[in-house]
Amino acid sequence: MSETPDSVVRTYIENHRAAFLDDLVEWLRIPSVSAQPEHTADVRRSADWLAAKLKATGFPTAEVWETPGAPAVFAEWPSEDPDAPTVLVYGHHDVQPAAREDGWDTEPFEPVIRGNRLQARGAADDKGQVFFHTLGVRAHLAATGRTAPAVHLKMLIEGEEESGSPHFKALVEGHTERLATDAVVVSDTGMWAEDTPTVCTGMRGLAECEIELYGPDQDIHSGSFGGAVPNPATAAARLVAALHDEHARVAIPGFYDGIIELTDRERELFAELPFDEERWLRTAKSTATYGEAGHTTLERVWARPTAEVNGIGGGYQGPGSKTIIPSSAMVKLSFRLVAGQDPDHIEKAVRAWTAEQIPLGIRHEITFSGSTRPCLTPLDHPALQSVVRAMGRAFQQPVRYTREGGSGPAADLQEVLDAPVLFLGISVPSDGWHAPNEKVELDLLLKGVETSAYLWGELAESPRQAH
Amino acid sequence: MSETPDSVVRTYIENHRAAFLDDLVEWLRIPSVSAQPEHTADVRRSADWLAAKLKATGFPTAEVWETPGAPAVFAEWPSEDPDAPTVLVYGHHDVQPAAREDGWDTEPFEPVIRGNRLQARGAADDKGQVFFHTLGVRAHLAATGRTAPAVHLKMLIEGEEESGSPHFKALVEGHTERLATDAVVVSDTGMWAEDTPTVCTGMRGLAECEIELYGPDQDIHSGSFGGAVPNPATAAARLVAALHDEHARVAIPGFYDGIIELTDRERELFAELPFDEERWLRTAKSTATYGEAGHTTLERVWARPTAEVNGIGGGYQGPGSKTIIPSSAMVKLSFRLVAGQDPDHIEKAVRAWTAEQIPLGIRHEITFSGSTRPCLTPLDHPALQSVVRAMGRAFQQPVRYTREGGSGPAADLQEVLDAPVLFLGISVPSDGWHAPNEKVELDLLLKGVETSAYLWGELAESPRQAH
Repeated sequence: MSETPDSVVRTYIENHRAAFLDDLVEWLRIPSVSAQPEHTADVRRSADWLAAKLKATGFPTAEVWETPGAPAVFAEWPSEDPDAPTVLVYGHHDVQPAAREDGWDTEPFEPVIRGNRLQARGAADDKGQVFFHTLGVRAHLAATGRTAPAVHLKMLIEGEEESGSPHFKALVEGHTERLATDAVVVSDTGMWAEDTPTVCTGMRGLAECEIELYGPDQDIHSGSFGGAVPNPATAAARLVAALHDEHARVAIPGFYDGIIELTDRERELFAELPFDEERWLRTAKSTATYGEAGHTTLERVWARPTAEVNGIGGGYQGPGSKTIIPSSAMVKLSFRLVAGQDPDHIEKAVRAWTAEQIPLGIRHEITFSGSTRPCLTPLDHPALQSVVRAMGRAFQQPVRYTREGGSGPAADLQEVLDAPVLFLGISVPSDGWHAPNEKVELDLLLKGVETSAYLWGELAESPRQAH
Repeated sequence: MSETPDSVVRTYIENHRAAFLDDLVEWLRIPSVSAQPEHTADVRRSADWLAAKLKATGFPTAEVWETPGAPAVFAEWPSEDPDAPTVLVYGHHDVQPAAREDGWDTEPFEPVIRGNRLQARGAADDKGQVFFHTLGVRAHLAATGRTAPAVHLKMLIEGEEESGSPHFKALVEGHTERLATDAVVVSDTGMWAEDTPTVCTGMRGLAECEIELYGPDQDIHSGSFGGAVPNPATAAARLVAALHDEHARVAIPGFYDGIIELTDRERELFAELPFDEERWLRTAKSTATYGEAGHTTLERVWARPTAEVNGIGGGYQGPGSKTIIPSSAMVKLSFRLVAGQDPDHIEKAVRAWTAEQIPLGIRHEITFSGSTRPCLTPLDHPALQSVVRAMGRAFQQPVRYTREGGSGPAADLQEVLDAPVLFLGISVPSDGWHAPNEKVELDLLLKGVETSAYLWGELAESPRQAH
């Protein structure tokens, strides 16, 4: 089934584990916080560090790519077999802000290893998961006797993911030839649980808009005029209230057009996951589930589109009261999209629906910001099955399937490079992404190394698929 | 019909007009802005000035009454007829903030007379309208040969009306014996138009609440959790959307309980007023009317209760977007009430209705702040007819009827002193209350003096009415 003797891989990893961790700790010490201007130089230092490390790993090419914001790192290691498939690994080297006083019990940029845990900002999101590929590819070479990977291996590690990847799509569009690939491997996600290895098969897309509603030219007196003119805050509220029908389905005509519905097999696979609603609710910091009728919670967050209000505001919000009819109100809406939905179609549908909802006497303006397409790789896609096999060999357990409810730049890679997106992540929900005391489980991190070591051979052997 | 020869009154006013205006200008120079701490001493100076002026006018008693905030002025001038009715005049000596840079074309506290206009902060709201009673009572005495008014005349001029009268009700409750009266005359309103003298017959009441809605314990990620837990901003929006039915009637069960409906005669009288919708909309700074089905705009603002959202907020309201399900949301609601509605009943109804609207998984808290009762004097009330007659003699025109959509401390006087409230105001909509270039029309101000001069005789002659 595979050209790589697994025991050789494991021994290689064991022998190089200490140096690997030393290197990762060195990288984690660089506070590459893209959102904070005082760390601009650190983000650049992080990019330079990574490019040098990838060169030392053996990548013949490792470059820092400039953007109008923070730099990305691109590396390339061609296979000796010119017919080998090309694979592009995506991750990011910037991290979320972190400060001791946010609730960390250690300094966030002074990594600490305690038992099975490496605690530091970026340990899981995303430096640890980017970095496992460096030891992975060395183990792959060691076990196969190759001097270059079984695939044409490329890596694109961006520096602005935690700032919303504002320049990422343009960066990809500007380098389509060098980034050309048969598949994208995203290592910036997680798996279900420590004891449940999973492969993610897709992410939801995202469309976002802000709607301003204008009523009276200025705030007017609710005594003198109340009850006789339209109130823009009421109009905003009615708009939000009308977003869903009584089955919690989005009521915007055309919203569900083209959706690739879950197959029975996918619903079964979701249902087989050990889902504990009480535990999920604790993660959601909520006390009840609520959503589209006829779907489970996992289906709702992974495979069904949403309309959520992220912000609403209008009139007086300070202490006490102010008897006004406000002059304006605002809602910020976001729509999570699933495979088959087109952000441009959604924008048209939302605009048309909104215009119909707004009453006489209220003027409105809608602004859509950049959207993200959904991405989904079919369960039977050969490249996806390669990831499943590699992970199964590393974990020596059955691998199950998840999806991701969030949205990410992976969709830009899928769209611009016209390649399927695969997700290889070993992070677990307790890793505390964006939170204090972020950590990675060391044994899972090394399973990531091992999966990476198997993956290039698996992908090289898998049948190509037209996409 | 009257004991006062009108020509004597007019001559008296003409002879004393210059001194009257000099005094008013002196008072208007005192920047008695109750809302601004730097004017605390000015508000006190204003009270002292007024008390001294009322003494000079002839009131045997004129006192400054302390409150925990700004002082009020109380004055009393008993009739020589012990059986005469008692009348309490209400007004206020504090003013709205004003600064030249707000758009005034003169200094707001340096009064200017140009043609028929006296421009200064407080000229109409409310010093001019308080002050016309001083010359009015002198003219009344001069024309009737009396040495004391035909009624037991009291005045209560508060110093915090522009700050929401926070201590007014307690002040009245603390002096119920000295304030005891058969009727209250409020001179802090206006009339329909320069050429349309009107008497106001009631004001709407007010109940106000703030509702906080709590969802997740903190903002959560709309990708990871969107579509599967209740969103408190959505719940807030639905609450506001559910406030009204499709006829724009308030949908809260019990809301309309006990309302004293408009009589056909009142609706006719409203309809007779020269109402120009385009002009009204300009005043409302709005482009369309909207309100309860089956009622005209004037009925809606004067005689129908309302539910308005004065503020709504939740989630992210800054620039750009933030893909969260917010942890909480808030709405501020106010309800204008009409005669027959009880604020305590409304509070109960709103609390019960809100509890029913809130979905599982959302916790809520409602806080009601101080309420104001509605007040209404029936058209055929003898004291009201006295005001109409006095005004008709002064204006030599038919007097029509209005109501006031706003709410005011007059309702506290009605409630605590158990006396009907009458409104005698000569201000017109163009006077610019709370706005730059506030002014009063001098000829209307002198009609106020004249109406006041006739009113005490009219009231003394009117039949007493049990209330």
